[in-house]
Amino acid sequence: MPSPLSVVFAASDAGLWRIDRITPVIGDTLPAASCLSVHENGAAPMAAAWSLRGTTSNTRYTTRAETGALASRQEGLGRPAATLAALIPIRKTEAWWALAQDERRHIFEESSRHIAIGLEYLPGIARRLHHCREFAEPFDFLTWFEYGPQDAGAFEDLVARLRATEEWHYVDREVDIRLSRSA
Amino acid sequence: MPSPLSVVFAASDAGLWRIDRITPVIGDTLPAASCLSVHENGAAPMAAAWSLRGTTSNTRYTTRAETGALASRQEGLGRPAATLAALIPIRKTEAWWALAQDERRHIFEESSRHIAIGLEYLPGIARRLHHCREFAEPFDFLTWFEYGPQDAGAFEDLVARLRATEEWHYVDREVDIRLSRSA
Repeated sequence: MPSPLSVVFAASDAGLWRIDRITPVIGDTLPAASCLSVHENGAAPMAAAWSLRGTTSNTRYTTRAETGALASRQEGLGRPAATLAALIPIRKTEAWWALAQDERRHIFEESSRHIAIGLEYLPGIARRLHHCREFAEPFDFLTWFEYGPQDAGAFEDLVARLRATEEWHYVDREVDIRLSRSA
Repeated sequence: MPSPLSVVFAASDAGLWRIDRITPVIGDTLPAASCLSVHENGAAPMAAAWSLRGTTSNTRYTTRAETGALASRQEGLGRPAATLAALIPIRKTEAWWALAQDERRHIFEESSRHIAIGLEYLPGIARRLHHCREFAEPFDFLTWFEYGPQDAGAFEDLVARLRATEEWHYVDREVDIRLSRSA
């Protein structure tokens, strides 16, 4: 578990990723833009149409057994064959944040199988979670996914299954941004 | 559980709290200063000798039963009789952050009784936890305590008990700043 990595996702007219579409799933959308760039541990570009900032962090719900299962199957970001990506910012309700740790864990995994579902799609669909609730940002989490065209159908299945869970009753804003690598 | 509150603790030559002493417990100390001011949701003063920034957040380990026990006994900050305070910044090791959630919970409470020990000192010793690991700050947590002179001995007992726990094997920097209200 490395130190937190600060990441800015900046939408503008230039960037490694071409924005194919921005879909509001729950609540307000984000403004249209043509490209997205991802900046690790650096300053946000000044000319962005919009930017979202988060950091990686320690896990919050994952047990040792689950950590081992994930580590044995997952692959990193930046694979040459992973030419598709998604950025899915979500915000959870105050009711979620008022729950105790054991209540949130129960909904997250024992009810919603968030970890188990994600595990089914490894290693094809790689992901990295960024936290931003403590940054006065408009979302609580930014999840970044990378996958190849052969996993595009599986990715739709993955997000549909997560959105059908009890955990998603506590999501009050979600935007789904799909991207293709432009270089 | 309100939204995260951003807090800056700024040491300078003016402020509501007079710094009585700064003691390095583990690792490097902080520079001497005469006063400390606490800024909620505002900009940090420019002239500070040093400042530390964190935010309140959701609980990370506390169960529903523990939350109820704490809520039934704890009092807020700012009580007129609470003329003494302590700011204790700590940093935990990379080994701590590499543990899974269930492992950290086990050390934190089943082994170290962190929540149960704190509960014994309520309502006399009020406290608020601020997180800063994701802010590229020199510490991971800033805990702020307020209590009256009649609880000064109990406070020494509280910090000594916590420092003797298994959890504290994972602390690699700790500074203990004691304060008295100057106004």
